[in-house]
Amino acid sequence: MLTLHTWTTPNGRKIPIMLEELGLPYTIKTVNLGKKEQFAPEFLKLSPNNKIPAMEDGGLTIFESGAILTYLAEKTGKLLPPNGPQRYKVLEWLHWQIGGLGPMLGQAGFFAVRSEQKAPLAIEHFLNETDRLLGVMDKQLSQHTYIAGADYSIADIACYPWVMAALDKLKPALADKLDNKPHLQRWIKTVGERPAVQRGMALPKVD
Amino acid sequence: MLTLHTWTTPNGRKIPIMLEELGLPYTIKTVNLGKKEQFAPEFLKLSPNNKIPAMEDGGLTIFESGAILTYLAEKTGKLLPPNGPQRYKVLEWLHWQIGGLGPMLGQAGFFAVRSEQKAPLAIEHFLNETDRLLGVMDKQLSQHTYIAGADYSIADIACYPWVMAALDKLKPALADKLDNKPHLQRWIKTVGERPAVQRGMALPKVD
Ligand SMILES: N[C@@H](CCC(=O)N[C@@H](CS)C(=O)NCC(=O)O)C(=O)O
Ligand SMILES: N[C@@H](CCC(=O)N[C@@H](CS)C(=O)NCC(=O)O)C(=O)O
Repeated sequence: MLTLHTWTTPNGRKIPIMLEELGLPYTIKTVNLGKKEQFAPEFLKLSPNNKIPAMEDGGLTIFESGAILTYLAEKTGKLLPPNGPQRYKVLEWLHWQIGGLGPMLGQAGFFAVRSEQKAPLAIEHFLNETDRLLGVMDKQLSQHTYIAGADYSIADIACYPWVMAALDKLKPALADKLDNKPHLQRWIKTVGERPAVQRGMALPKVD
Repeated sequence: MLTLHTWTTPNGRKIPIMLEELGLPYTIKTVNLGKKEQFAPEFLKLSPNNKIPAMEDGGLTIFESGAILTYLAEKTGKLLPPNGPQRYKVLEWLHWQIGGLGPMLGQAGFFAVRSEQKAPLAIEHFLNETDRLLGVMDKQLSQHTYIAGADYSIADIACYPWVMAALDKLKPALADKLDNKPHLQRWIKTVGERPAVQRGMALPKVD
């Protein structure tokens, strides 16, 4: 049985979406970041970088959402081709999310929204970078149905919760910069209509 | 024949190190970031996110260093186990570098060193994060010879140029925070003694 340790944040929702797509049985254990549960010694054994998500499958433990998505795709043979050029298109956009979209939108959220002290230089820097990255996505989606090509993949699953977080938390700061990206809007609608995405985005359930 | 598009930066040196380890023949094309060559239309066709490294292998093009390292490892069967638990230990630490060590040290370099205007809040935030991440590495290396376990892997190759950049560019700002990490120091020495690492760190050659 798979056990997923996660929370209600963009990285935390990628794996529920993936598991819902795959129809695999799993159990969720919540790690309440507001209560600093990511620093609990038991959790640090699974995730030494004190971040969610982390997953257990039998004796195997894995942290880092990109590694978990790759593991689940390779375990089931789904949403990542096992070989050939298209495999590496999926991996390049997966890594683009992990190394770019995720950390830069995360920092934009920190400086523009969560930090009490304000550093205008950092706010401007990360909002510009957010806009640039969403523009890269829009351009890619002007040429392809999904982010890595013709097929839905783990790269779309990685990007979707972050784009939704930008639309939600950063919308006032980004203002009309989100409106001039029609291909991104089209993708948001298409991906958002998937039942597994709707179920995964509502997880984990918290009281 | 492999063609690598790269520059003299931490992400730019990962692939030369990997290609030297593998002993594969390759050609380097430099992309001078100081001259903004990453925005040239021909380069953007390979790398729509305007970043190095990017690679061509026959008709296949790939950007994102983590995807390129994975591609080369899978092409040759080296430095990433093809399956089993150890494969996912390598992928988790590869993703940790791509999503954490790389972007956070990159932002530390931007705010603490490269930016002319200074935002003290951002400088402190990213230097603390750099110290935290190097501490996570030190702890992992207190239990394992290499970052993902007993064997040298693409995860070590991904981390090494970033740790060296921190030692070089951020040393005055981090001061003694680097000295209290003996396991990290041991790893730097071990990895730095590899001939392929020494050759790769001296690339690309520029006039
Ligand atoms: N690169 C990591 C990032 C994970 C991450 O940033 N998780 C955040 C929540 S979205 C977290 O756990 N933060 C808690 C902390 O840093 O203390 C991944 O993709 O899994
Ligand atoms: N996640 C990417 C990051 C690549 C990256 O940040 N490259 C930098 C140099 S180290 C670059 O090309 N910067 C030029 C720019 O952003 O305009 C990777 O691992 O390949």
